[in-house]
Amino acid sequence: MTDTREPGSLLAEARELGAVLSDLNQVSGLLGWDQQTFMPKGAASQRGNQIATVQTLQHDMITSTRTAELVRALTDVQDQFGGTDRAMIRELRRAHERATRIPARLVVELAHAESEGVGVWTEARANNDFASFAPALRRLVALSRERAQHLSDGHDPYDALHDEFEPGSTSAGVQAVFAPLRVATMSLLDRIRGSDVHVDDAVLRRSWPSDLQETFGREQSARFGFDYSRGRLDRSVHPFAEAIGRDDVRITTRYDANFLSTALYGILHETGHGLYEQGVAPELRRTLLEQGTSMAVHESQSRLWENLVGRSEDFWHGAWPRLAELFPDALKGVTRDAFVRASNAVRPDLIRVEADEVTYNLHIMIRFELERDLIGGKLDVVDLPEAWNTLYLDYLGTEVPDDARGCLQDVHWAAGLFGYFPSYALGNLMSVQFMQAARAALPDLSEQVRAGQFDPLRDWLTENIYRHGKTYEPLELLGRVTGNGLDAGPYIAYLEEKFGTIYGVMT
Amino acid sequence: MTDTREPGSLLAEARELGAVLSDLNQVSGLLGWDQQTFMPKGAASQRGNQIATVQTLQHDMITSTRTAELVRALTDVQDQFGGTDRAMIRELRRAHERATRIPARLVVELAHAESEGVGVWTEARANNDFASFAPALRRLVALSRERAQHLSDGHDPYDALHDEFEPGSTSAGVQAVFAPLRVATMSLLDRIRGSDVHVDDAVLRRSWPSDLQETFGREQSARFGFDYSRGRLDRSVHPFAEAIGRDDVRITTRYDANFLSTALYGILHETGHGLYEQGVAPELRRTLLEQGTSMAVHESQSRLWENLVGRSEDFWHGAWPRLAELFPDALKGVTRDAFVRASNAVRPDLIRVEADEVTYNLHIMIRFELERDLIGGKLDVVDLPEAWNTLYLDYLGTEVPDDARGCLQDVHWAAGLFGYFPSYALGNLMSVQFMQAARAALPDLSEQVRAGQFDPLRDWLTENIYRHGKTYEPLELLGRVTGNGLDAGPYIAYLEEKFGTIYGVMT
Repeated sequence: MTDTREPGSLLAEARELGAVLSDLNQVSGLLGWDQQTFMPKGAASQRGNQIATVQTLQHDMITSTRTAELVRALTDVQDQFGGTDRAMIRELRRAHERATRIPARLVVELAHAESEGVGVWTEARANNDFASFAPALRRLVALSRERAQHLSDGHDPYDALHDEFEPGSTSAGVQAVFAPLRVATMSLLDRIRGSDVHVDDAVLRRSWPSDLQETFGREQSARFGFDYSRGRLDRSVHPFAEAIGRDDVRITTRYDANFLSTALYGILHETGHGLYEQGVAPELRRTLLEQGTSMAVHESQSRLWENLVGRSEDFWHGAWPRLAELFPDALKGVTRDAFVRASNAVRPDLIRVEADEVTYNLHIMIRFELERDLIGGKLDVVDLPEAWNTLYLDYLGTEVPDDARGCLQDVHWAAGLFGYFPSYALGNLMSVQFMQAARAALPDLSEQVRAGQFDPLRDWLTENIYRHGKTYEPLELLGRVTGNGLDAGPYIAYLEEKFGTIYGVMT
Repeated sequence: MTDTREPGSLLAEARELGAVLSDLNQVSGLLGWDQQTFMPKGAASQRGNQIATVQTLQHDMITSTRTAELVRALTDVQDQFGGTDRAMIRELRRAHERATRIPARLVVELAHAESEGVGVWTEARANNDFASFAPALRRLVALSRERAQHLSDGHDPYDALHDEFEPGSTSAGVQAVFAPLRVATMSLLDRIRGSDVHVDDAVLRRSWPSDLQETFGREQSARFGFDYSRGRLDRSVHPFAEAIGRDDVRITTRYDANFLSTALYGILHETGHGLYEQGVAPELRRTLLEQGTSMAVHESQSRLWENLVGRSEDFWHGAWPRLAELFPDALKGVTRDAFVRASNAVRPDLIRVEADEVTYNLHIMIRFELERDLIGGKLDVVDLPEAWNTLYLDYLGTEVPDDARGCLQDVHWAAGLFGYFPSYALGNLMSVQFMQAARAALPDLSEQVRAGQFDPLRDWLTENIYRHGKTYEPLELLGRVTGNGLDAGPYIAYLEEKFGTIYGVMT
């Protein structure tokens, strides 16, 4: 059947469908945000039904005969469109194809397996009991592999899963940047281990009243440009950022009254995610383009604001007086320099979310290799703990004392998220690539940050990255902004310069 | 076309449809609750789209050809069902008929007129400028009348609007109870005015720290039985209760540090609404019966817990020590008796929401007469202020100094809510009718309340009212529980007894 309508009329229908799907995405976002912040415990089961109903409506809409005809007709005429129209068509087609390729039965089975998986994992981690989690994980791996086969169209199944988070990225591409990154990181880490310099970070573990941490965090996020008239900061067990539209961006954190970094750098991190979403152009509201273009690009922005800005000497030059004012007791006898060094202590350790800038990517590489082999059928679930522990010894030189601090530490696999981990490290690499481009465009950036002026950087990022939403795919965007493809070189150079100086081990 | 399926299969389809509609109702509930509590200001426009999309999906579902066929087929076989099945079919048919009778164009026009109306009204009230609100109100009256005509099927248009809030109630029925209530109330009020007794309520206007008000309010609502594992208490400009399902009931209040009654009696009021929703039987989850049966029955419960319990001597017998402990300064030199009397001061005044138990219903009667005449075409919008002021002088003996404290005080008409006001007064009447039945069943109720034991009362209300949700229509429920129809007598007797004693004007 051929759709004989005018391209303009097809586009109008696609826009209307995109608007409704976008509204429902945002509704799902609110349901999820509320679930993790304010929802009473007893509502869990009802919330599950509410979410399932909204998802079913979305699924019915995106897989309907009418949508199938629309997508087919638009594909025939897509060359007539450019810019955001064409990108919107691409996203609609992608959503339609993904949804139609997966059998409804599998969607339901996976939803149950994920829900059960998270429950079992929570118990297993608390009891340090991998064996009790293994059957659930085996089922998740099998179902995810089946899902990947439906999606992959004959290509590598792992790539199909990874592509959902990073359109256009492949495991070969990931390996191509991870290989030199691993060598360089391990070399730097060896030199740091051998250094006479000891960085004392005990100051971060003094008494830091939570309410004052919140005051400082809110102030800094607002100075970075987080717009509290279009966003919120709340508390949750697991910090996250959720955009219920670009005009309603909600970030969360948790406070540890005896450890400053959790909330402080956590807020700056989530602020980066938040700035990205708040910076999407208003014209993209109610389209499928009203969000960041991939997990890695998102992570590049959270890491840019957390690390490249937030853990820099330049930043603390401006922010130190206020911190000293709010926390006279904790900072008694501590110099600004000592504090910045403490914030940048390198410590090969067991837990990914607490890792420093040098070792973080090694944690990711381990997970990438393992999940690729799980999905590829080269690693059996029962052998996961040993494989995990071997890689930690190889890459980080650390003995894993138990699975709770080993292969049970992350929720991702229990939630059926395979192919996601690489994005964290790709984001780190991209953050420095983007920052280099920003520095080239803003020669006074360092001085501005020292003076607490973040508008020039944020405006540049908004203009070049944020406002486009999903218009450009991740690697396309990276190329437009930096002129380069994904490259570990800049990140390696950044680590060498920063940590080589701190630890006196410049090559 | 005749549906030849088995009744059981029709019922299963109706249940599934009801489940999805119930989920979407709850999703709308969360969107609305969030809008009034935590949503950032800048998100207003996006939230409007999200709500409209969910409502459109509900409307499409309830008016679809498939639903029409289902409703028709179920009507033919409904006599085969009883209890909740039959009630569910009734609610599905009612929703279907209402939605199909109103032209889609009118739904959209009304939505815009209401949204504009609230905006214009907010300004007009702030500027005490009725003339600027009149055109919007005229449009709302005209559109509501048109809507009423579609719904009324040749009967009285006002009744059709009122019936949406109070199924089975008519303006003739309302008038039949309002007439004796007005006479009795005005007689009591005359005697109170002539009494030598002066009730001093200055104590309520001392300094009452808001955080301690919240502590006390939470404690009392929990003692009444509000389950905080299935509910929340938050702050909002306009206090309300919203049930996002019976396992997720959210109430709000506002605090005035210089006036205790607002939050204290506000929390007890919303707790009443909350207990009703939390008390719906778990078996009614995901059905169209999972909520209170009408606005009046709902109000009967909020008023029962606020007034019949919360403003009683029995209640304060148990609650006084804790209040005295939390607020030693505000209560210095104040006896429990004096405090209870202050909480029950009668003061004919201008503002409905601040009215005491005696005068409250007079405020409602005025609105009922005026809105009935507006919809009936007997009162022109331009004449509203004069008609309002005349009735206030007649019924309450108060001169209305300006429209801001007169016909502009309530948001209802600006939001297109005509036919709603009577429910407030009907709820007051029902509250005493229900309480009489409770006292008859629980001979020790007074002693229990004095001892701070609220479980027997709440359990009785749950068993007789709450657990049924919308299974019984309001007057049917009243009849089942009290053996009587709607009757002003018990309320009048209650007022005479309570306020006759306080003011020494027993007849």
